[in-house]
Order: sequence, then structure tokens, then C-alpha cells
Amino acid sequence: MTHATAIAHPNIALVKYWGKRNVRLNLPAVSSLSLTLSHYRTQTEVRWDAPRDVVTLNGHPPSKAQAARVFAFLDRIDGARPPCAVHSDNNFPAGAGLASSASGFAALALAATTAAGQALDLTALSVLARQGSGSACRSLWGGFVEWRRGEEEDGTDSHGIPLEGADDWDIAMVAAVVHEGPKPVGSTAGMERSRETSPYYGEWVQGADADLQEAKAAIRARDLQRLGEVMESSTYKMHATMHTSRPPLLYWHPGTVQILHEVASMRADGLGAWSTMDAGPQVKVLCARTDAPQIARRLTPHATRVDVLVPGGPARLVP
Amino acid sequence: MTHATAIAHPNIALVKYWGKRNVRLNLPAVSSLSLTLSHYRTQTEVRWDAPRDVVTLNGHPPSKAQAARVFAFLDRIDGARPPCAVHSDNNFPAGAGLASSASGFAALALAATTAAGQALDLTALSVLARQGSGSACRSLWGGFVEWRRGEEEDGTDSHGIPLEGADDWDIAMVAAVVHEGPKPVGSTAGMERSRETSPYYGEWVQGADADLQEAKAAIRARDLQRLGEVMESSTYKMHATMHTSRPPLLYWHPGTVQILHEVASMRADGLGAWSTMDAGPQVKVLCARTDAPQIARRLTPHATRVDVLVPGGPARLVP
Repeated sequence: MTHATAIAHPNIALVKYWGKRNVRLNLPAVSSLSLTLSHYRTQTEVRWDAPRDVVTLNGHPPSKAQAARVFAFLDRIDGARPPCAVHSDNNFPAGAGLASSASGFAALALAATTAAGQALDLTALSVLARQGSGSACRSLWGGFVEWRRGEEEDGTDSHGIPLEGADDWDIAMVAAVVHEGPKPVGSTAGMERSRETSPYYGEWVQGADADLQEAKAAIRARDLQRLGEVMESSTYKMHATMHTSRPPLLYWHPGTVQILHEVASMRADGLGAWSTMDAGPQVKVLCARTDAPQIARRLTPHATRVDVLVPGGPARLVP
Repeated sequence: MTHATAIAHPNIALVKYWGKRNVRLNLPAVSSLSLTLSHYRTQTEVRWDAPRDVVTLNGHPPSKAQAARVFAFLDRIDGARPPCAVHSDNNFPAGAGLASSASGFAALALAATTAAGQALDLTALSVLARQGSGSACRSLWGGFVEWRRGEEEDGTDSHGIPLEGADDWDIAMVAAVVHEGPKPVGSTAGMERSRETSPYYGEWVQGADADLQEAKAAIRARDLQRLGEVMESSTYKMHATMHTSRPPLLYWHPGTVQILHEVASMRADGLGAWSTMDAGPQVKVLCARTDAPQIARRLTPHATRVDVLVPGGPARLVP
């Protein structure tokens, strides 16, 4: 086969990932835990052995840097590869803190290796996808996924591990988009700035394992409040390392803070809703599926777009 | 004398104060450094030996809790005092993170002790004012004031110390008010929550002395950029301990973030402007006096009120 198409969903970290122990291999300083989401998806078609290297994103050529990142990733699959054609489509805003690089590199890893005639298992695909974008290693699986930082220098033990719990638990994630557009500082540059300059970075790294254990215990107990609280705590700790970087990394927008206050107000009204943000201004709200419509209605006046997402499935080939 | 009137100005911390080593005496966990501001002022009249205890704030009775705080403060001056009448007026928003309690308790300390016939020096007044509101101990003096945390259990070594530097340096502070109204969590309760629950509180306390030394060196060198950068860093570190408290203390409003981005944008345009925030949503921007009008113009679309303030003078009696 020299041609394959794959779909993957983005994932949102509940225990957050910020900081690398190895930049080239995308090895994280902390373990993390995510929820793969439905509805949002990247679909990527790879032709292995094309007339020339070409890549499109939603039908248009991406930036030179993005194209170079894609081809460097294909070189990892086969250093002597032929020219390749990559066509990728997202049905949600890219590069805006909605994890489009996670679904993007997960879909690319699956489509490209299949097109190249390689049959990798999910763990090997996760190790590969991680090298394209760290969080992509969690998008090979659906539901809850743990990403252990690992200890090996070559990163072979740093990959996603699927967890039980999402299939029989009616939870949802309401994504409130407050600003579409690329982030001012990319994640890798931002993580390095935090590692080098934030006085709180050491404590951030030290506390991550306890958050991971707390989140796993909450998932085992199907305790949404407990999971929501550790997610919010991990989120604020991560953004605190961003804010205290020099110069400060302020990914929040006015609308971000508006929604954070609205979520606090919903909780004061007895609604179970907990917020998280990544390296961008959007807010995602974890809640029970039955509460999602009401929460979406309350967020709508403050957002340019609100989507109700539920746990999504694994990356897969399109026949 | 049984009657006296005093004026004091609020001060804004450049090296921030957050956290107490003794709540009853308002002894801080960290040393801090402030700039006393012009224009904004509290004027307080005290009649010592009145028909009954009475207090007004801007002509109206304050909350019971505020009134109790005023009379408890008078009890510290004389445990066997007669009934007292206190009338206090602010020409700026109170209880909104603009340091009205600093000017308030500095003016009250000076007016009440004078009315009671006590002649205290400024250091003794500072120790007294601190017990009403911690930051009030810095408002006895004009310009730059250091507040050393002190080591004594009784707080006698924890008071303001005036610094040289503000008289011959043309700096300004542009205050952008984005939301008037009381803060959701008072400073004392907020500080205790951070001390008890923020994982970054220990590092916050540990780093404060270095910030103080850096700010004093910047003032000695009349280096505004250096002073602005350590002020911003101290500010973000303080707010990070607030955000990582459980539950989070989010004093920021949407307008706060709007102005933080505008200040970053001004700096990108080559304008020297650095931001600070206290336990409230307002942003104060440190700059050269010659740049203040331009900075005020750029902040005006994002604020409900913008004031250009310069270094102010000490607390004083009104004849």
C-alpha cells in the first residue's frame, strides 16, 4: 500500500503537560492524563511515493515551518523515504489551544506508517506520534489516557497508556472558544521559557505525580467533583508557571477570565462544572453529560463558539 | 486636643505584600516596597470624646464589619477610650484594590492619636497603622517606602522605612480602573487561603527578599526598566499564589487581561510601561512621567476610569 487515510481526535489534558526533559524527542518533564474528545477530528491522507513533497491543511499550503515539521516527521518514519503528499483537514480551529497538533500528528503517524507499508502497534505509533507533537501520543486511544514521562533517554517508555473509565461514565467537555487565531508563543518555546525562568517550575514538576494519582483515583471512583478539582488545580498551577515566566506567557484573553468567573458562578449555583485551559485562550468545561446543555447555554453569551463534546474514540484508518 | 483631621495617600506595592506571619498583628511573611501616590487621598476627622461611637465613610455608615474594625483600632490606641466620632472621605473607589485601606488606616492612626493627645513619631504611627491594615504602615511617608517583615513576635520591628529616590525621578503610575465594587474575598482571608493551600506559597516567600534588593538597586540607579521588570515579576508571582489557592482566588476581571495585553503591546511599540495588580481587578502602570499622557490615552478605551498619579507626600494633619 502506498496510500492511507486516518482519523484522530484531539485530547484535552486533565492533568496538564507543560515542560520537556528532552526537546528533540518531546520527552515530558511530567506525566499527564487526558480525555480524548468526540466530534472534533483531524482526517489525514498520505500518499507515500508522490511526484514531489506536498502538504495541504484544510486545502491550503500551511506555513513553511509547519510544512517542514510534517516532512521532518515523515523522515523519522523512513530516512530514505520517497516524496510524499499529505492532505489534512480539521473540522475545528487549529493552532488555538484546542489540541489540533495532537489529533494532527496522531492521524499522520497512523496514515503515514500504513501508507509506507509499516504495521506498528498502538504503543509504537504513540512513541512515534509523540515525536511530532508531545500530546499526540495520547490521541491514539479513546477515553482517558495516561502519558508517563518515562525514564529512558531514548523515550521508548514515554507513550500513552489507555485507562478504563470513560465508556461507562456520562461525562462531557464543553469547549468555549473565545478567540480564534494562532497563539503568540508556541508550546515548545513557551515550555522552555517556563523551565528556564519561572521560579515555580520546580514545584510544578514535583507536584505532577500526586495530581496524576489523584486523578486516577477519581476516575476509578467515578467521582466527577474530585476529578474536576484536581483538573482545575493542575490547570492553574500550569498557567502560574506561564505567568511567572520572564517575559510572562499570558495565553488568557479577556473572554477566558469572563468564562472562568461564569464557571465559578455556575458552581455557586450548584452546577458541577470545572474549567481547564491549555496554551491558548479557550476554556473547556468538564461536567456531567446531563448538565452540558445548560452549561453550554450559560457560556454562549461569552464565547464566539461553544461545542459540547463527549469522550471520543481511538485513531483509526478510513477504509 | 480632642479633635483632629488627617490626610493620607494610598500606596501601591512595587514589590508585593501577600501572606502574614501573624494575622492578629498584621505581621507580613515577606518584606515589600511601595510608592505612595498623589491625588488619591483619604481625609479622616476624629472627635475623641463624642456622645457615642459613630463612623461614616463618604457620609454614609459603613458595614458593621468595617465599623467594628475602626473601633477595634481605636481600642488599640486606648483600651479605656471615650466614645469617638470618625468621619472619613475618599476621593477614589474604596475596597476595590486601590489601597483605600492603606490611606484609610494611616489617616486614622494620625488623626486619632492626635485627637487623643498622644504625640507619636512616624515609626510608632507606622507600627500602629499596620495593625489596622498591613499596607497602611507604608502610607505614613511619601515616595518609596520599604516595609521590612521584621523578626520580633510583637511586631515592633515591622514598619515602614522611607527610601530616597522619588523626589528627583520623574515617574508616574497610571491607574486603570476596570471594575468598581468590593472584592469577592478580602485580603486577610485571601492571604490565609494562599498560605494554607497554594503549593507555590513557600517559593513566593523565599523569593521576596531578592525582589526587594533588586528593586532597591533599581531605584538607586534610577533604572525604570529594571524597576518595572521586578515589579511585574513580583506581581505575577503573587497572583500565581492566588490562582493556585484552593479554591482559586481570581481577582482579575476580563478588563484586567485586556489591559495587561495592551501594556505588553505598548512595550512592543517601544513605550516603557510595566503593570501591577493587587487584590482586585484594577491595573496600575508604572512609567516615565512624560509617557503617562500617551499611556493613559491608550488605556482609556479599555477602562471605566484612568488616572495619572505621581509620587505623593506623607500623611499629615490638616490645620
